[in-house]
Order: sequence, then C-alpha cells, then structure tokens
Amino acid sequence: MTSQAPTPAYRRLSVEERRSQLLDAALSLFAQRAPEEVSLDDVAEAAGVSRPLVYRYFPGGKQQLYEAALRSAAEELEQCFAEPPQGPLTQRLGRALDRYLAFVDEHDAGFSALLQGGSVVETSRTTAIVDGVRRAAAQHILDHLAVRDPGPRLRMTVRMWITAVEAASLIWLDEDKEPPLDELRDWLVEQFVATLAAGAGRDAQTAAVVKAALAMETADGAVGSLARRVVPVLGDAAHLL
Amino acid sequence: MTSQAPTPAYRRLSVEERRSQLLDAALSLFAQRAPEEVSLDDVAEAAGVSRPLVYRYFPGGKQQLYEAALRSAAEELEQCFAEPPQGPLTQRLGRALDRYLAFVDEHDAGFSALLQGGSVVETSRTTAIVDGVRRAAAQHILDHLAVRDPGPRLRMTVRMWITAVEAASLIWLDEDKEPPLDELRDWLVEQFVATLAAGAGRDAQTAAVVKAALAMETADGAVGSLARRVVPVLGDAAHLL
Repeated sequence: MTSQAPTPAYRRLSVEERRSQLLDAALSLFAQRAPEEVSLDDVAEAAGVSRPLVYRYFPGGKQQLYEAALRSAAEELEQCFAEPPQGPLTQRLGRALDRYLAFVDEHDAGFSALLQGGSVVETSRTTAIVDGVRRAAAQHILDHLAVRDPGPRLRMTVRMWITAVEAASLIWLDEDKEPPLDELRDWLVEQFVATLAAGAGRDAQTAAVVKAALAMETADGAVGSLARRVVPVLGDAAHLL
Repeated sequence: MTSQAPTPAYRRLSVEERRSQLLDAALSLFAQRAPEEVSLDDVAEAAGVSRPLVYRYFPGGKQQLYEAALRSAAEELEQCFAEPPQGPLTQRLGRALDRYLAFVDEHDAGFSALLQGGSVVETSRTTAIVDGVRRAAAQHILDHLAVRDPGPRLRMTVRMWITAVEAASLIWLDEDKEPPLDELRDWLVEQFVATLAAGAGRDAQTAAVVKAALAMETADGAVGSLARRVVPVLGDAAHLL
C-alpha cells in the first residue's frame, strides 16, 4: 500500500514530525471506527508510510498508538488555554478560544468522538482524559481571573461555561460549521462575560473578579461592544430597577 | 429474601404504583452497578417483593426491566419542563427547574450515571435517551419563548444553557448538594437571563424574545432582583459605554 502513498517526500520528516503525523492519522481513524476495527495497516496507509515504520515508532502496537493518540489530543487541547497573563481578560480568552476552536475545526469527528466518548472509543479512559482537559482549562481560567482560592460559586460558573463551550463546539460541527469561527469565538467570550456578571449578583468573590476585569477593558474591546449592543435591548426594562 | 422485606403492606399497591416501584428500584441498582452485575433477585430484594412478582411485571427479564427503567427516568425528566405558558418566563423556568432539581436530588447517583453514560450503563442507548431528553427540554423552552421558527443563534443559546444546567447538577451532586436547591434554582434562572441578554446583542430574534420576556417581568421578580444586584457591580464600567 505504501507504493500508492500520497506523501511522496515523507522521508524528510523529523522524528517528532513523523510521530505527530502518525498520531494524527491514528486519532482520525479511531474517531471514525472502534479501536478493534482499526488495524496498524490502516494507520500506515492513512499516514502514507509502511507498517514497519509505524511499529518502529510504536513498538507496543495498536494499544500504545491508541493511548498515545488520545493523550496527544488532550495535551494539545490543554495547551489551547495557556496564555500570557497580560491585557484585558476578554482578549486573552479570545486568543485561547481561537486555538481551541482551530483544534475543533481541524479534528472534527475526532473531537466529537473524544467528547462524546463511549460509542467509538473506550469510555472510562476517554472520560478520564477529557475530564483532565476540563480541569486544566478551568484552572487556566481561574489563574487568569487572578483568584488564588476560588469559592464554589466561581468554580461552578467557570465549569458551566466550559461545558457550554463544549456543547457549542459540538453543535457548531453538527451545523456544518456555522456561524464562522470569529463570530462563534466572540459570542463565547460574550457568554463568559454575561455568566460572570450574573454570578456577581450572588457572590462577592465573583463581583470582585468582575470589577477587576472591567477595569482592564477598553471601550473598543469586547465588553464595551457587548454593552453598547445589549443596553438598547434592555432599555425598556427600567420598570424592573 | 422477601421475608425480610421492609415494605410490609406491598400488596396494597396498584399495578401502576408497583410497576413504578420496581422501576425505581431497578434504576437505582443500575446506577450503582453494571447491568451484568444486577440480578432480578437484587431488584426484587431492593423493592421488597418476590422474584416471580418482578417477572410478572417484566416477563422479558432483566433486559426489559433495564430499558423500561431508563425510559421511565427519561420520561420523568422530560415532564419536568412541561409548564403552562402563563406568567413571567422566569417564574415558569423556576418551576420547571424545581421539578428537574428534585429529580436530580432524588435519583442522585442514578442521575450522574444516566448523564455520564458509558461506564455504568450501555452507552449508545443511554446517549440516545439522554439526547432525547435534551431535545425535549430545548423544545419546551423554545415554546415558552413563543418562537415558532428558532434560528441557529437562539437554538444554540438554549442548548448551551441546558448543557450548563446538566453540568451544574453534576457539580452540585459532587459538592454534597451545595448550595441549597432554592439558591441553585435562582442562580440557574439568572444564568439563563444573562445568556439570553448577551445573545440579544448579536441576534435580532433573540433581542425580540428578550424584549417580550422583559415586558412580562415585574420589579419584584427574578430579573428585577438580578438587575438591582448586578448594576452596582457594573457601575464603575461607564467608561466602556
């Protein structure tokens, strides 16, 4: 099968590039079929290399390749939320979401399979890996909020938003990747602002976080733009104040 | 084992009550163990009845009982969101959440197992049942928003909130059922208001829904209370408008 390989120049890849190429091919196959229905020949063919080459990189065979592929996807996802602690929070969150959504866009069915677990990949392990990513993402966000000892309300707010982002990503894949990524990103950032602002009404720690975050925002930033669009909609509701 | 049964007067239950009692016992066992580790004897013992009685109600044996238990939980969950279309939306949503959270509180581990799927119960079937409940809940909410032809933004907003509610329920069970149910309910209603208000900034249909919903609210209702608590927190952010 290697004679029909669509990657003529594959010998030039570095060890790391090759490993990563094999993991990508494996992840995409495991996303579409149950692990027992994926052979190393399939992985070799998808990557355009020989079977012995796959074994050279993964001497433990399919099980090793399978676990490494899941692990690699999880690590890549976790890295999406690593962002220097500078500038307005909404900008940092927007950049993190750009990376996260690019991952969703690229891995597509593999992402759905990873998140939905069960029917395609082994469940308990998948669940543990995905939960690890969620925990890491929540920790990144709490770090950016500069909260050292987050209370239950703030933790719940952040975890709810992360779940909502996952749901939005799955829906986005379901709906032929509409709306465009930029718009989805801005919308998710705005949802985070809204969810945090509502939480501030009930929790002093969240209120302090919101005040500190707002002080860093500029009028041409995400919060200003959101406020200018939402205030007119709420304008008729003065009777509620 | 029936001689030790803790339900001395069980003969007085009607057919429907008995069926429902057996389903509850089964659901709670299937929630704690894999289906293959639950026997009809276990179900009979948990319900305080004889094995032949279980067979009389479920002649198909364990598989029939298992599917009926899942189906029954799903139907009960779906019914939580059935609510007459009268009064402010936040009150209707609050009543629906009261029922939903009572279900979560009562079924506890069974609820987690149902939602997390996989490790405890058969995955593809569980996923399909849970997805059915999600779809039904979303439809109930869209009906209450009086939207006949919901666009993608509004549908995504509602589905994201439903996922966030699920996440909050699982976290609530994880955190020894803190905060108290009333507070969690009010908080989830407020999150819905916030998420819809933010969505209004980007989608004309959502904006129309928000305006119509606000017109039904009263100053002493959920939105008024939320606004009075949040506005002071946002007070310093006039530079963003």
